[in-house]
Amino acid sequence: MVRRNEVRAGETVVEAPPATDAGLVFIGRIHTPWTDRLETPRQGRLDGPTCRIEVFEPWVAALEGIEEFERLEVLYWLHLSRRDLVRQSPRNDGAARGTFSLRSPARPNPIGTQIVALARAEGGTVFVRGLDCVDGTPLLDLKPERGSFTPLAPRQPGDDQVGDPA
Amino acid sequence: MVRRNEVRAGETVVEAPPATDAGLVFIGRIHTPWTDRLETPRQGRLDGPTCRIEVFEPWVAALEGIEEFERLEVLYWLHLSRRDLVRQSPRNDGAARGTFSLRSPARPNPIGTQIVALARAEGGTVFVRGLDCVDGTPLLDLKPERGSFTPLAPRQPGDDQVGDPA
Repeated sequence: MVRRNEVRAGETVVEAPPATDAGLVFIGRIHTPWTDRLETPRQGRLDGPTCRIEVFEPWVAALEGIEEFERLEVLYWLHLSRRDLVRQSPRNDGAARGTFSLRSPARPNPIGTQIVALARAEGGTVFVRGLDCVDGTPLLDLKPERGSFTPLAPRQPGDDQVGDPA
Repeated sequence: MVRRNEVRAGETVVEAPPATDAGLVFIGRIHTPWTDRLETPRQGRLDGPTCRIEVFEPWVAALEGIEEFERLEVLYWLHLSRRDLVRQSPRNDGAARGTFSLRSPARPNPIGTQIVALARAEGGTVFVRGLDCVDGTPLLDLKPERGSFTPLAPRQPGDDQVGDPA
């Protein structure tokens, strides 16, 4: 049994405060082979199918330089998810655990993050492998994968800070 | 020279659409040793100082099980960042590149993601190393680092899908 938006035995629902602390703008849309949440991979794989990320204006110019990176981090909005579960039962077997110890799409702020392999970029379109979201998912951000990115900005004092004060 | 919120030579500002496509709720607050953006590390390090993540109610119960993981992914809201730059000059030298080819905090949706080492969790507080954000940064999400998490949910058809249709 897989999740639509039911509440399962053992799960805990809270009355969530209004989600009005900050606002998001959808900067594009993600096109994948999966048209239903019951088909999507649980975790993307870098040898998975090519997916197409469409970037909207006025953000297309922000893609400049992206082709330098083999791996990108993609952030997207899990628009079909409920946001009020604090304990979840992924196996639907009555056993539950905290939302923050799961990578379930149901979370107070349903933001998906994934590391993908860049296939190619053409104008406002980026082709990647490794996604696991449903077709039509709104795009929030794209950035170089942290391990492959070296900051260009000047050094800051915190860069060299290790351990804790005695 | 480091960034306050100035626009530098070579940078491109756009008229950003209103950020009203989805709303966020701040689920906690991050306490770090850095009280000014001009001091924060450019990238967190796992041997850096211990930082304290405070989780607000009603989300504390969602921490259950988190101590199983050595590495967590933390998502936070870069509340001091401007959101309308599509090309940026990290060195402030007139040379600019696209926002999506940088991990700069200035982005259309200023969401920071970082992998941290879990030190310990106590009630609604989580102590970690590896953050690079300013003191007081709003918390958006916590999840197990992807490499150390094995999905508990039943398999889905997409799990086994590799390559593209002929």
